[in-house]
Amino acid sequence: MESTGLFAPRGSTSQVEEGLALSPKFDRDGLLTCVATDGSTGEVLMVAHMNAEALTKTIETGEAWYFSRSRQQLWRKGATSGHLQRVIEMRIDCDQDAVWIKVEQTGAGACHTGRRSCFYRAVPLGAPATRNVTLAFRDADKSFDPQAVYGAAPKPG
Amino acid sequence: MESTGLFAPRGSTSQVEEGLALSPKFDRDGLLTCVATDGSTGEVLMVAHMNAEALTKTIETGEAWYFSRSRQQLWRKGATSGHLQRVIEMRIDCDQDAVWIKVEQTGAGACHTGRRSCFYRAVPLGAPATRNVTLAFRDADKSFDPQAVYGAAPKPG
Repeated sequence: MESTGLFAPRGSTSQVEEGLALSPKFDRDGLLTCVATDGSTGEVLMVAHMNAEALTKTIETGEAWYFSRSRQQLWRKGATSGHLQRVIEMRIDCDQDAVWIKVEQTGAGACHTGRRSCFYRAVPLGAPATRNVTLAFRDADKSFDPQAVYGAAPKPG
Repeated sequence: MESTGLFAPRGSTSQVEEGLALSPKFDRDGLLTCVATDGSTGEVLMVAHMNAEALTKTIETGEAWYFSRSRQQLWRKGATSGHLQRVIEMRIDCDQDAVWIKVEQTGAGACHTGRRSCFYRAVPLGAPATRNVTLAFRDADKSFDPQAVYGAAPKPG
């Protein structure tokens, strides 16, 4: 997919970090990490992955496209649920192996479990390393019924 | 490192997604993805990785520890620069393969290039897929001099 012309070859460290050419560093599976945050609240909605095609489609359309590792296919966010993500801004990090998108999350939520965000459980800090950690729900109310939205469709992700 | 006792074995999908046991899904390299955001501004500061030991140390100490893929070693954030990250809250996502930490970033910044955040370049949207994309600097002023802070030390990451 690099042949679409959007991406420049990887240059020196200085070129990658201080330059203005988009030259993403895909991992050995051909993926970048993508963090999606809510453009108004700053909340992290989800962490997912993009291959070259998903990145290209996101840039071209201004809507979030990912690559589903579990289903091994291109995934237009919201294709099943209708919960599309309109990208307000996309940024890339210093070594160009991760992108951050600020999105307008349409519909009830980003998480296939029915929550607005995938990060609905807190990990307590200060626990001694001698026993299992017990998570605590945070902002975990379901904003939609995943069964009604996804039905028997394969879940995203 | 799973033998520290902090982590429960992976159960069913329902247990992993709806339960309160911390049972992280490390990838084939033994890593989780970690997103660090600024606890006051919501800005994404960096995306990095944690192995079981880094996750354990972060939970125990309330300071961010990562695993450097480039150096293949445990990495206490700020060990070289003094720019520690105090963890205000840690969350884990639905399938427990990513964590989000809200941090108080001490010192001048999180990025080894001298910026507060690693995400100092925007990717323009709507570009046709026929030519290279040109990034645009955003919030890219350097808040510290990386040469003065890191000198000849191996850079983090």
